[in-house]
Amino acid sequence: MPDSGSLPIDHIQTVPETMRAWVLGGPDEMTLVEKPVPTPGKAEVLIRIDAVAICATDLEIIHYGTPAIVDGGPPFHKNFTIGHEYMGTVAALGPGVDEYKVGERVTVEVHAGCGRCKRCRQGMYTSCHNYGLREKGHRANGMTTDGGFAEYAVNHINTLVRVPDTMTDEEATLVVTAGTSMYGLTELGGLVAGESVVVSGPGPIGLLAVSVARSLGAGPVILTGTREDRLAIGRKLGATHTINVREQETVEAVTAIVGAKGADYVIECAGTEAAINDAIRMTNRGGKVCLAGFPHDLAKVDLPHVVKNNIYLYGIRGEGKSATHRAMSFMAEGRFDASLIHTHTFALEDLQEALRYARERVEDALKVVVKPRGVASLKAKAAE
Amino acid sequence: MPDSGSLPIDHIQTVPETMRAWVLGGPDEMTLVEKPVPTPGKAEVLIRIDAVAICATDLEIIHYGTPAIVDGGPPFHKNFTIGHEYMGTVAALGPGVDEYKVGERVTVEVHAGCGRCKRCRQGMYTSCHNYGLREKGHRANGMTTDGGFAEYAVNHINTLVRVPDTMTDEEATLVVTAGTSMYGLTELGGLVAGESVVVSGPGPIGLLAVSVARSLGAGPVILTGTREDRLAIGRKLGATHTINVREQETVEAVTAIVGAKGADYVIECAGTEAAINDAIRMTNRGGKVCLAGFPHDLAKVDLPHVVKNNIYLYGIRGEGKSATHRAMSFMAEGRFDASLIHTHTFALEDLQEALRYARERVEDALKVVVKPRGVASLKAKAAE
Amino acid sequence: MPDSGSLPIDHIQTVPETMRAWVLGGPDEMTLVEKPVPTPGKAEVLIRIDAVAICATDLEIIHYGTPAIVDGGPPFHKNFTIGHEYMGTVAALGPGVDEYKVGERVTVEVHAGCGRCKRCRQGMYTSCHNYGLREKGHRANGMTTDGGFAEYAVNHINTLVRVPDTMTDEEATLVVTAGTSMYGLTELGGLVAGESVVVSGPGPIGLLAVSVARSLGAGPVILTGTREDRLAIGRKLGATHTINVREQETVEAVTAIVGAKGADYVIECAGTEAAINDAIRMTNRGGKVCLAGFPHDLAKVDLPHVVKNNIYLYGIRGEGKSATHRAMSFMAEGRFDASLIHTHTFALEDLQEALRYARERVEDALKVVVKPRGVASLKAKAAE
Amino acid sequence: MPDSGSLPIDHIQTVPETMRAWVLGGPDEMTLVEKPVPTPGKAEVLIRIDAVAICATDLEIIHYGTPAIVDGGPPFHKNFTIGHEYMGTVAALGPGVDEYKVGERVTVEVHAGCGRCKRCRQGMYTSCHNYGLREKGHRANGMTTDGGFAEYAVNHINTLVRVPDTMTDEEATLVVTAGTSMYGLTELGGLVAGESVVVSGPGPIGLLAVSVARSLGAGPVILTGTREDRLAIGRKLGATHTINVREQETVEAVTAIVGAKGADYVIECAGTEAAINDAIRMTNRGGKVCLAGFPHDLAKVDLPHVVKNNIYLYGIRGEGKSATHRAMSFMAEGRFDASLIHTHTFALEDLQEALRYARERVEDALKVVVKPRGVASLKAKAAE
Repeated sequence: MPDSGSLPIDHIQTVPETMRAWVLGGPDEMTLVEKPVPTPGKAEVLIRIDAVAICATDLEIIHYGTPAIVDGGPPFHKNFTIGHEYMGTVAALGPGVDEYKVGERVTVEVHAGCGRCKRCRQGMYTSCHNYGLREKGHRANGMTTDGGFAEYAVNHINTLVRVPDTMTDEEATLVVTAGTSMYGLTELGGLVAGESVVVSGPGPIGLLAVSVARSLGAGPVILTGTREDRLAIGRKLGATHTINVREQETVEAVTAIVGAKGADYVIECAGTEAAINDAIRMTNRGGKVCLAGFPHDLAKVDLPHVVKNNIYLYGIRGEGKSATHRAMSFMAEGRFDASLIHTHTFALEDLQEALRYARERVEDALKVVVKPRGVASLKAKAAE
Repeated sequence: MPDSGSLPIDHIQTVPETMRAWVLGGPDEMTLVEKPVPTPGKAEVLIRIDAVAICATDLEIIHYGTPAIVDGGPPFHKNFTIGHEYMGTVAALGPGVDEYKVGERVTVEVHAGCGRCKRCRQGMYTSCHNYGLREKGHRANGMTTDGGFAEYAVNHINTLVRVPDTMTDEEATLVVTAGTSMYGLTELGGLVAGESVVVSGPGPIGLLAVSVARSLGAGPVILTGTREDRLAIGRKLGATHTINVREQETVEAVTAIVGAKGADYVIECAGTEAAINDAIRMTNRGGKVCLAGFPHDLAKVDLPHVVKNNIYLYGIRGEGKSATHRAMSFMAEGRFDASLIHTHTFALEDLQEALRYARERVEDALKVVVKPRGVASLKAKAAE
Repeated sequence: MPDSGSLPIDHIQTVPETMRAWVLGGPDEMTLVEKPVPTPGKAEVLIRIDAVAICATDLEIIHYGTPAIVDGGPPFHKNFTIGHEYMGTVAALGPGVDEYKVGERVTVEVHAGCGRCKRCRQGMYTSCHNYGLREKGHRANGMTTDGGFAEYAVNHINTLVRVPDTMTDEEATLVVTAGTSMYGLTELGGLVAGESVVVSGPGPIGLLAVSVARSLGAGPVILTGTREDRLAIGRKLGATHTINVREQETVEAVTAIVGAKGADYVIECAGTEAAINDAIRMTNRGGKVCLAGFPHDLAKVDLPHVVKNNIYLYGIRGEGKSATHRAMSFMAEGRFDASLIHTHTFALEDLQEALRYARERVEDALKVVVKPRGVASLKAKAAE
Repeated sequence: MPDSGSLPIDHIQTVPETMRAWVLGGPDEMTLVEKPVPTPGKAEVLIRIDAVAICATDLEIIHYGTPAIVDGGPPFHKNFTIGHEYMGTVAALGPGVDEYKVGERVTVEVHAGCGRCKRCRQGMYTSCHNYGLREKGHRANGMTTDGGFAEYAVNHINTLVRVPDTMTDEEATLVVTAGTSMYGLTELGGLVAGESVVVSGPGPIGLLAVSVARSLGAGPVILTGTREDRLAIGRKLGATHTINVREQETVEAVTAIVGAKGADYVIECAGTEAAINDAIRMTNRGGKVCLAGFPHDLAKVDLPHVVKNNIYLYGIRGEGKSATHRAMSFMAEGRFDASLIHTHTFALEDLQEALRYARERVEDALKVVVKPRGVASLKAKAAE
C-alpha cells in the first residue's frame, strides 16, 4: 500500500470549530480566511479535505463569477468557497447517516439533486430543475454551495464514492473527472466494446475518456489534439491512435483508421467550432457525438450533416447517473493510471500559485492538486 | 366507407408490360415517358400506384438532383423516377412473399435497409451504412431507386403498411409523413403523456407531429410558425396552443405556457437558424430536441446552452424503427384527421402543375397529391 | 363541471388538532379512533382526505398484517392507519413547499423513495432499498406510514398528482391504479401503438391496463377473465376483444385473434399459475410479459418456453417512474372513463361495511370508495 | 504469433466438390458421409471449417432431434449436419460480397434472421419470427440449416466475426459462447461496472459470463456451482468469489459478500429449479436476472418474490444484438483467457469419441473441439 498522504483514522477525533478556507471576492480576487467548520445536516457528512484538484471551471468562476442561480441575479458570491474536485476523510456524520463511518476515505461528485423535481425523480440529478436552490435540497459544492478549497466541507451522501486504501489522495481527486467521461459514454449507450471512439481535446476529461472507453472495450480509440505531449499521455492512457490536428486533416486521418463511413462515437472535449464540426463530420450514419467541452460562444455548426446522417448530439453537464462509481470501479482495479494526468501538488496556502500553474500551464501542468496538510508551503520552502 | 378512389381488387388481373412514368432529366427537367413495368424480386412486391403526394424533398431533388450516392459522384440520374410518398394496391408478389396478397391496399415508407450493415443489424434501417447501394439490398424508393410518380413501383415488403378500407388514398399517402413525426417522438423517448411538447414549423411533418404527440397523450402541445392559416390547421390537428413567431417573442411565449423552466421536448421542423436556437433555448434542463427540419446551411447554434443544460439533439432522417406502423395505428382509429393537410389532387399527367402548386403554395396548397387514375387531367378539363 | 364532492377551497381555513382515523389492531381488527392530525415536514404537505378507495391489498393487510419492514420483524402495527388509494385537498404545507398551494385538489401515489439508495438515485423509487425506513426518508403511505382511512394524511410532494376540476373525487382515487397499469406498460417499452396487448385478469389494474394500452394506441387489446360482467366493463374501457377463460382455451383464443406467433405484450394481473403460464405461452418470440398480479405461492412455470422464446418477465411493484402523471394526463382528457370501475361509496365510519362489499363483491362491487364527508352514514340512513 | 492451426491463405485455391460431413440419422445416430460442398448465395460465404466445439445443445439434438420448425412437425432431419460453434477460413464468396475476403479467418454466431419480420426489423434477429424458414432468409446453422461437423459450411455474412491472427482456432470457437454471455449482460443493461454480479452454473456460458462481467468492470463477480474444479477455473477467469452450493446455503453466502439487500444482477446458467429460485432470492429490489440456462421442465418458481421486489427476468436465447463482436473485442485483447475452458481436441472422424468425452465429462472434459485437419485421428494413433 502506497503512502496515501491521509492522516490515519484515529487522528479525526475532534473537529475544530474554525478552519482555513479560500473565499471569492470580486473578479480574480481570492482570500484565505478563517471561517466556521460547517455542520452536516440530514443525509450529509462532514469531510476533512485531504486533496483538491483545480478544474478549468474553477479558473472560469474566479474570473467570471459563479453560475448565476437566479437569471439576472448577481454572479459573484463574496465569501463563497469554490473547488469541486476534492477527496478526504469522513470527519462527522449528519443525523441518521449510517451509510458511511467516520474515518472512511471518500472522494466526491459535484451534484446532489433536490430529489423532488421531475429530473431528479428520473434519476437525472445533474439536470435538477431546482439547480442552485439550496432550500429545495440541491447542492453543487464549489458551484452553488461551499466547496473544497478549504479544510472541511459538507457533502450529501449521494455525492460520495469510497476510496480504496491503495489509491493516493491525488488520484482520488480525479474520480469526478473520470466520472464525467463515464457519464458521456453512458449517455452514448455504454456498450462500446469493439466500437470505434474518437476523443477530441486532450484535457483531463478527454484523456480520461480515452481510458474509460478503453476500459469498456472500445477499439480503436483515437485521440485528437494540438499538443504532442498531451497526445503522448493519451497513448499511455490507452489511445490506440493519436492525431495531431495541426499536422493532419482530422476527418481524413480518422477515416483512414476507422474506414470511410466514419467513427461510431465521438466525445468532443475541445469545445471549439472547428473541433465540433470535425466531430460531427467524422461520425458515421446513425452515430453519436457527446458534447462534453464547454463552448463559450455560439458555434457555426454543420447541422445539415447531423440531420442527413441521423446523428445525435448529447450535451452533457458533469458526471450524472452514478457514473463516478463506475469510473472508480475501473480506477480501483488499475485498469488505467489516472495519476498520469496529475502533475503538481501545492499546499493549500499556495492556492494562488497553484492556480497560476493550472492557468498558464507552467511546466506543462495538467492536473494541479492542493493539499491542506502534509505538503510544505512555498513560504516554508523559501524560509529554508 | 368512403369512396377510396382505388379500383377494386378484381381489376388487378393483368399487369401491363409498360407504364407511364415521370423521369428526371437535367435540373428542373422532367418528362413523362413510357417505360417497362418493373418486376419484384425476393421479399418484394409490385405496387400499382393509386396516389402519390409531393414532398418538399421532391422539389429539391428536381432542382438539385438526387442525393449523391458516391461522394463526388454525379447527383443527377437521367431516367430516374422520383416520388416517395405513395400508396397503392399490391399487383404482384415477388418469389416467396406470402406476407401480402394481390389486391391489398398498402402505403409505403421510404427506406429498406441492406439488412447486413451494422446499423441495419441494430434495427436502424434509415441509417443504413450501405445507403444507395442497390446491390447490397438497400432501397430508398424515390431517392436512390425508382419511386412513385409512375403507375407502378417495386417495394421491399419491409416498407409496406396496410391501409384500412375506411381510409382514402389521399390520407394514406400521409402515413410516411406521420411516421417521420412518430419516429422523432420515438427517439425522444416516446413516453410523452402529460409532458410539454413544442413543435416549430407547421409544414406537414410539424403538423402531424402535433397530432402524433397529442395521440400519445402529450400536453400542452404548442405549435409555432409564421402563417396564421397553418397554425389554424395545427389547432384542428390537436395543438393546445399556437404561437405566431412574427408576433411574439417565441421563447417567452412558450415559457408563459409551460413555465419558466421550459418545455420537455421540442420537435424542430422549420430548419432555420432562428428556429433552431429558439428550440434549444425553450427546452428545459435535461430536455430533448428533435431536429427534423433539413437546414441547408451551417447554423450558428447556442451550443453553450445545450451543454450547460444537458440537452440532447436528435437529428433524424426519415421514418425509422417501424414508426409508420405506429402512426398508421393512430390514423386508422381516427385519432387525428391527417386529411386536413391534403389540399389538392391532380392527374398524374399534370404533375408539373401539381409541383407548381406545391412549390408556390398556390391556393394555400399544403399537401398536393397526384393520382394515375380517376382524376380528370387539366387537358381533359380544358377540352370540356 | 360535475359536483366534485370536495368542499370549496375557502373551507380549509383551519386544520383541527385531532381527526377520526381507522387503526389496525390484531388480525381482522380495526377501530375508528380520534388521533392527532399529523404535521407535514420538509417537502411534505398535509392532505385533507376527500375520498379513499379500497384495494385488494388493504384486505390482505387487515388479515395478514403490514409488510414486515425488518425481516422476521412483527407484521402488525397496532394503531397504524392503512389505505393508500386516496385523494383530497392540500390543507397545509411543510416548510419550503411552494410546488403546491393550500386548497389544490390532489391524488396520490403510494411510494416516496428515500432519495439516497442506489435505486432511488436511478429514479426507481418504488424499488427503494430503504423500503420501510421512515428515518431514511422512505414512505409508503398505507403500507409503512399512516395512510388514508382517516380525515388527514401527510404526503411527500413527490407522491402528489394534481386533479382537474372536472374530475370527481371517486375517479381521482383511481389514478394510482391506472398509474400501476401505466408503469407496467412503461416497463414493457411504452411504444405499443399498433402492437397486440393481452391483459389477463379483469380486476381494477387489469381493467385500467386495457384503457391505458388503448390510450397509447395498442391494438388489438384483448382482455381475458372468468366473469362476464367484468369482461363487459373491459369492453367499455376499450378492450377490442374479450375471452372468457372458462369457455375457451385461452392461448388458442388469443392466437386466433393475433395470429399464430402470439401476442407482443401480455399484462398478467390474475396471479394464478394457470394465468401466468397462459401469459407466457401466448407471448410471441421476443415478446414481453408484465407480472402485475401478486401470486401468493410459488408457481410451476413454463420457464423452458420463456428461455426458448427469448421472453422477458417484468415483476412490477406498484406505480413507479411517475406513471401516475402519465395516467392522469389520459384520464384528465377523458380518453377512458375510469369511473366505470367505481361501484359503491360509503361514509368513513362505515368502512367495515365497505370492506365487506369489497371482500365479498356484494352487488358486484368493484371499486368501493369511502368518504369522510358528504356521504350519509348507514347509521344516519337507518335513523331516517 | 502462436501456431493457429489454420492452413495459410494460399492453400485455399480450390474448393473441392465434395466433403466429409457428419449427418443425423435416428435418435443417437450419426454417420460420417461424403456430400457436396454447398454454394454460398447472396450475402453468404463458404467457410472451410478449421475447428468446431461441442455444445450441450448438440448432445440434446443428437438424442432428441432438432428443434421442430413447424409445431407438431418431425424433429429429426435425416442427413442434417449439426454443430454450431465453429470457426474457419473464408473459402468462397457469394455474389456481391465484399465485406470479407477469401482467406480471412472468421468465427461464427448461430442466428441469421430473416430480415423481414417484426423482430428482425427491431434488430432482434435471434428472436426471428420466421425461425426455421430458410426460404424467408432465416438460418440457424447447426439447428435449422447445415452446421459445422463437416469440412465446409455456408454462412450469412451477418454471422461472421473476424478472428485475429494471434488467436488459436480452439479459442475462436468459443466466441459464440462468450457472445451468449455478453448478450445476457447486454439485456441486463450492460453498464455493470462496479455492480455486483452472480453467475450460477459454471458451464461454458457461466464461466465466460464471469469473464465478460469482469471485463465490463463488474465487481464483485461471484460464481456458484457444485464442482470445485469448475469453480477453480472460474477464479482463473475472473470470479472474485466462488460458492460451492453443496457446502454453503447459497443465498446466505451471496448476501454475506454483497450485503443483505442482495445482488444487482444474476446470470442463471444452471437451469435447475433450485438454482433459479436461489437466483431470484439473491437479487435485490429492482435487480435483474438473466435466465440463460435451458430448463427442461416446468419449474416451481418464487414469483411472489419477483413481483414484490420488482425483479425482471430475461429469458435469453443465444447470442443476439451483435454481442459476439463485443465478446471478441475483449477476447482479442486478452482481457480473459477463454482457452482455459477448452480441454480436448479430436479429429473430425473421431467426433463420436469427442461427443462421449463431452457427454460423460471424461477427464474433466469441458469444451471439446473437433478439427477436420491437422489432428491425428484415433485410428491413426492406434495404427502407430
